[in-house]
Amino acid sequence: MAQSNGNKESAEDDNLCQMLADLKVRTSALEVQGAERDSMTKTTAELLKAYDDNLLKLTCGPVMRTDRESSEVMDEISENPVDFDLVVKDFKDRLVSAGVNNGHPTFFGFINAGGGTYPASLGAFVPAALATYSGAHLGNAEAVQMENRLIKWVADLFGYPAGHAGNISSGGSLATLTTLAVARDSRELKAADFHRCVVYCSEFTHYAVQKGLRAVGMREAILRNTPVDKALKMTAAALERQINEDKEAGLLPFLVVATVGTTLTGSVDPVNDIADVCDRHQLWLHVDAAYGGFFALCDEMKQLFSGVERSDSIVVNPHKGLFTSGGVGVLVVKEGEKLQQCCSLEQTFNFFKGHSIFSAENVSPSELSFELTRPFRGAQMWLPLKVFGVGVFRTALEEKLLLARYFHRKLKETGEFELPLEPELSVVVFRATVPPGVDINNFNQQLLDDLISDGKIFITPAVFSDQYYLRVCVLCFKTHIEHIDMCFSLIVEKRGHLWKSSR
Amino acid sequence: MAQSNGNKESAEDDNLCQMLADLKVRTSALEVQGAERDSMTKTTAELLKAYDDNLLKLTCGPVMRTDRESSEVMDEISENPVDFDLVVKDFKDRLVSAGVNNGHPTFFGFINAGGGTYPASLGAFVPAALATYSGAHLGNAEAVQMENRLIKWVADLFGYPAGHAGNISSGGSLATLTTLAVARDSRELKAADFHRCVVYCSEFTHYAVQKGLRAVGMREAILRNTPVDKALKMTAAALERQINEDKEAGLLPFLVVATVGTTLTGSVDPVNDIADVCDRHQLWLHVDAAYGGFFALCDEMKQLFSGVERSDSIVVNPHKGLFTSGGVGVLVVKEGEKLQQCCSLEQTFNFFKGHSIFSAENVSPSELSFELTRPFRGAQMWLPLKVFGVGVFRTALEEKLLLARYFHRKLKETGEFELPLEPELSVVVFRATVPPGVDINNFNQQLLDDLISDGKIFITPAVFSDQYYLRVCVLCFKTHIEHIDMCFSLIVEKRGHLWKSSR
Repeated sequence: MAQSNGNKESAEDDNLCQMLADLKVRTSALEVQGAERDSMTKTTAELLKAYDDNLLKLTCGPVMRTDRESSEVMDEISENPVDFDLVVKDFKDRLVSAGVNNGHPTFFGFINAGGGTYPASLGAFVPAALATYSGAHLGNAEAVQMENRLIKWVADLFGYPAGHAGNISSGGSLATLTTLAVARDSRELKAADFHRCVVYCSEFTHYAVQKGLRAVGMREAILRNTPVDKALKMTAAALERQINEDKEAGLLPFLVVATVGTTLTGSVDPVNDIADVCDRHQLWLHVDAAYGGFFALCDEMKQLFSGVERSDSIVVNPHKGLFTSGGVGVLVVKEGEKLQQCCSLEQTFNFFKGHSIFSAENVSPSELSFELTRPFRGAQMWLPLKVFGVGVFRTALEEKLLLARYFHRKLKETGEFELPLEPELSVVVFRATVPPGVDINNFNQQLLDDLISDGKIFITPAVFSDQYYLRVCVLCFKTHIEHIDMCFSLIVEKRGHLWKSSR
Repeated sequence: MAQSNGNKESAEDDNLCQMLADLKVRTSALEVQGAERDSMTKTTAELLKAYDDNLLKLTCGPVMRTDRESSEVMDEISENPVDFDLVVKDFKDRLVSAGVNNGHPTFFGFINAGGGTYPASLGAFVPAALATYSGAHLGNAEAVQMENRLIKWVADLFGYPAGHAGNISSGGSLATLTTLAVARDSRELKAADFHRCVVYCSEFTHYAVQKGLRAVGMREAILRNTPVDKALKMTAAALERQINEDKEAGLLPFLVVATVGTTLTGSVDPVNDIADVCDRHQLWLHVDAAYGGFFALCDEMKQLFSGVERSDSIVVNPHKGLFTSGGVGVLVVKEGEKLQQCCSLEQTFNFFKGHSIFSAENVSPSELSFELTRPFRGAQMWLPLKVFGVGVFRTALEEKLLLARYFHRKLKETGEFELPLEPELSVVVFRATVPPGVDINNFNQQLLDDLISDGKIFITPAVFSDQYYLRVCVLCFKTHIEHIDMCFSLIVEKRGHLWKSSR
């Protein structure tokens, strides 16, 4: 019987080996190598190059194509393979024709960094191909060190001392969510008190704060819109008044968000004055520098960043002012252990703790963030910073600042536009004056429609104080003086047409 | 005077134009084009190819190199540029030699998908280079549609009906965080009650749940470890007992997490039985299928997924069972409006609402997630699914299942190993038997050290019930029968040596 069982097992083993040999052959398609790999690389590189070479011929505004032919093979996810060249070409064609063109130098909407320099795009590619895991020291100590060096570089830029800690997230929203959680936990707030907690913003603070509060369980918390001055900056005196009132009412003020470069107008809150208030009342000061942060590289901007070094946390987005591809945000918390206390469960690979392969003196990134696995995002900062050097980023940001001022001056010189704010960073807000009897909001709304209708430029509205303004944000690394000139001419021209037809 | 001012302004304008022309020249380095671009592409592709071609010569375990020479130029972020070829080569050399080699076919640690097929890596590269923004329909309607199609494909795989909604996050942790927030909000829990809320897991549930609870403000909530049976599966009867007791004690049970493929042992909780309990008590049922989810593609696995269609939410990680590069997780919520209610502030580009370029009937991804900007992660799923077709993924996953069984059988046939569990998915847990009088835990801990010391294979411990086991997780798409044979031989050999020296 034993013998017979042995034979049976042996036959089963043989059968299993045969099946596995067969399966290996059938799955070999997944292991792209040799000529096939070369061909894929070539096709991809050529398509990307063609996109880049033809960029100026493309529209930059949102295009809602309805004429694209649908094909079952391409639309449905199906059992069988489709030719690589066809897939990548279709993929590129769809993406390029389907919306806003973030990479375009006359895309002045939102906050547009140009879609990433080529080395930044390679920084998304290389770690993906190398399978780099940067969530733990055990995973890749060098990748973790590179990220820590990048975080330190950002911390140094804002004058944070040693002892800070941070993480590289997918962007400002997650970074904000995380810092809200850290601020919440560092104050040892009990959930039962969340409804009494007060967060202070201005109406120009990014709504990532409100969204983040929901995420971290503080939907019931009170979000105050602190009054702003004429330059749309949060006023420290009004802030302090609110805090005092809230304290008297038995509420729990705990967090102030100051913005260095609001999304809508680029206004910079007076961080130093706000820091004084936070000091007096022992509130967590968070600085949202998602948009404006890297302008700190420019010497003449230093005074705008005065007081940022006094904050408890900063968010700055490399996919904005550092021209990385989308999806790279940096959070730095001054007292690093607070970030760790909030995020760490000390369970990351803890079965290896004490083992020689585990470097116990280092905190792993996954203990400083709510993410465990994530792409090695630092690569998208590291490669361009090394390849280009910091200097050219500084110069490019100086150029953007100057372009905004140049654009502002040109509009002003025409005498045909209202310019409610001097640009502090690279956002210019304006609206056309109107013929007597014409509604200024309607006129400018129509002007916006006319301006973006053919996709030559893309700009957005900026509505505040019930007034409709237009907004140009200059941040794309490809934007130069000729693009501003083109934008200016188009605005003057369309405004002229509209003026005539409105009289 | 007016004339003189005009002259002065004109002179200033000229000066500004000259400065801007100069700045354009100085920042042109950022716009990589033509031959320089070709050269960067070539260098990068060659390095990645060299890595892939030499993969089998590399170690797969964690290497803590201390001998690497530091260089100021490469380590510090400096003002000046460094040659591209040098930067990329250094970058690759550091990353490849610095930790675990996730792409290696004999890396059996953690849950290793092989680091991404080549088209998946290109899927990280292409949208970065095309500057695709997939957070809003306005940004790129086609990218958003592709992601929705992918989410629907996942939803279909698990039998979810229409009405679902989801998002593609950076991985399981963020997806879990999000579903915890949705479950919390859908129950309209007040923060004051968070300390009475109860979440039910087993001790084998991933700690992303505990970490996520902290993130969403529910640090005070009660996390129950529901007892498991001999196969380490959560037991529905014990779960119901706990729920009843908690209800009687005035607590608020609200969420059960069932795992389809635990990280440690690959055990699958009895989802159908658990769903019965959740139905009776009106609890949110979340299924963590981060590891095991895509095994649902295999016909013979269908019964393991029975009941998953009854859950309220599912997380599954394409960077595991779908062999994408790291950083791609899918969350699907059955009642999609609950996800939207939790995440949406309806402020995404709301200044364009009602405008013809805004497609109002579509919900934007940024209203279904806590992220606003993020990379177009869907590309890493889309390209490989199209290029390879679904069929070969199915086959590859069948191969992994069979490899695990093959490995299990081989260990069993030696008579030298204890195998406490039949592998349900692709994790095999085992330990060596020991000579009389030798501590079995110590022996196996030593065996692990011996096994991973030279980096030929990488496996992890699996400690449960105070017993030290070894664990092999088969999931890398490059792993075939010869790699399992190699692993098996090494284990038998090292175990033999250790046995001799222990007697």
